Amino acid sequence: MSNPSKYLDDLIREFSKLPGIGTKSASRLAFHILNMAVEDTERLIDSIVSLKKNIGTCIICGGISDEERCSICRNESRDSGLICIVENARDVLTIESTGKYSGLYHVLMGLISPLDGIGPEELNISSLIKRCGSNDVREVILALNSTVEGDATTLYLAKILSNLGIKVTRIARGLPVGADLEFADCATIIKSIEGRVEL
Amino acid sequence: MSNPSKYLDDLIREFSKLPGIGTKSASRLAFHILNMAVEDTERLIDSIVSLKKNIGTCIICGGISDEERCSICRNESRDSGLICIVENARDVLTIESTGKYSGLYHVLMGLISPLDGIGPEELNISSLIKRCGSNDVREVILALNSTVEGDATTLYLAKILSNLGIKVTRIARGLPVGADLEFADCATIIKSIEGRVEL
Repeated sequence: MSNPSKYLDDLIREFSKLPGIGTKSASRLAFHILNMAVEDTERLIDSIVSLKKNIGTCIICGGISDEERCSICRNESRDSGLICIVENARDVLTIESTGKYSGLYHVLMGLISPLDGIGPEELNISSLIKRCGSNDVREVILALNSTVEGDATTLYLAKILSNLGIKVTRIARGLPVGADLEFADCATIIKSIEGRVEL
Repeated sequence: MSNPSKYLDDLIREFSKLPGIGTKSASRLAFHILNMAVEDTERLIDSIVSLKKNIGTCIICGGISDEERCSICRNESRDSGLICIVENARDVLTIESTGKYSGLYHVLMGLISPLDGIGPEELNISSLIKRCGSNDVREVILALNSTVEGDATTLYLAKILSNLGIKVTRIARGLPVGADLEFADCATIIKSIEGRVEL
């Protein structure tokens, strides 16, 4: 394929490196950028630069923050006795998008994975233990994905946090709302039966 | 949803404006940018800036080009007697990606659309007529989409180009390769029967 522009080629290649963007989408995006007003392109570039320059990590929960403490940790109307443990900062946004959780968060910044050389020391766990020891934390919810690493991390944290006398829970596994039993996989069905609730 | 970073919010909003990118993809991209190495982000930004600054229009075909004449129009091994007419510069790349077309192109930069106030004068048609009149053009292939505007433009161009004594063809409409008759729509089946070829 003889592409008539090196610059277009370059941008398509850069876009293709982003997650979920194949060559066709990258080409579509590059042509869109080509036809965009200069101000709009500048706004996009400024957003990227500002993000890389200004964003930091909250010293309390480890989530992303523009200031020393993130807006969630600063918010006094939230329930400081409840901490939800997530793998990464993005999971905070996912749970926040429901608008139904009013506790705080703690971001592990990864999962225990001996194969990749990631032990508990590499994660944001010591500050969690400190938080749980000094504050009025009454419950910790483990909201990690159910992968081998996620389950290992869940078990590890459940053990050390229980020793501190804190109630430790895990988010429910079962059939997604609106899903059909017929199309569910075996593991999900087993989890949904094991985790059945009384009516 | 209380997003802990204004900068992240800004970038997610800018990404959401791009075609084919919803809020979830935009959020995924923004987090990817957040975790990207600074050099990689700079390379992405440089590509956008270079594209906007350096890319131009080929004075012959109207396609995109880094120089006065695009690499396709400059290429003397291509068949200059054959011109494929497309709606926009992106269609050139789509046809080039097959690697099977060796003629030249002409980019209309739009389609005739009286409702939007776009007549033949607004399109890159006068230079096409000049090209067809002065050069050794023997055939013009119309490769416009089969929308109301595409068909109107095809008919308009077929009429004026035939008057110049040039052979005018249109790309075939029919069943896509590998498609099943059972799932084809009526219009496509009708076109495929009308356009049947002798074996």
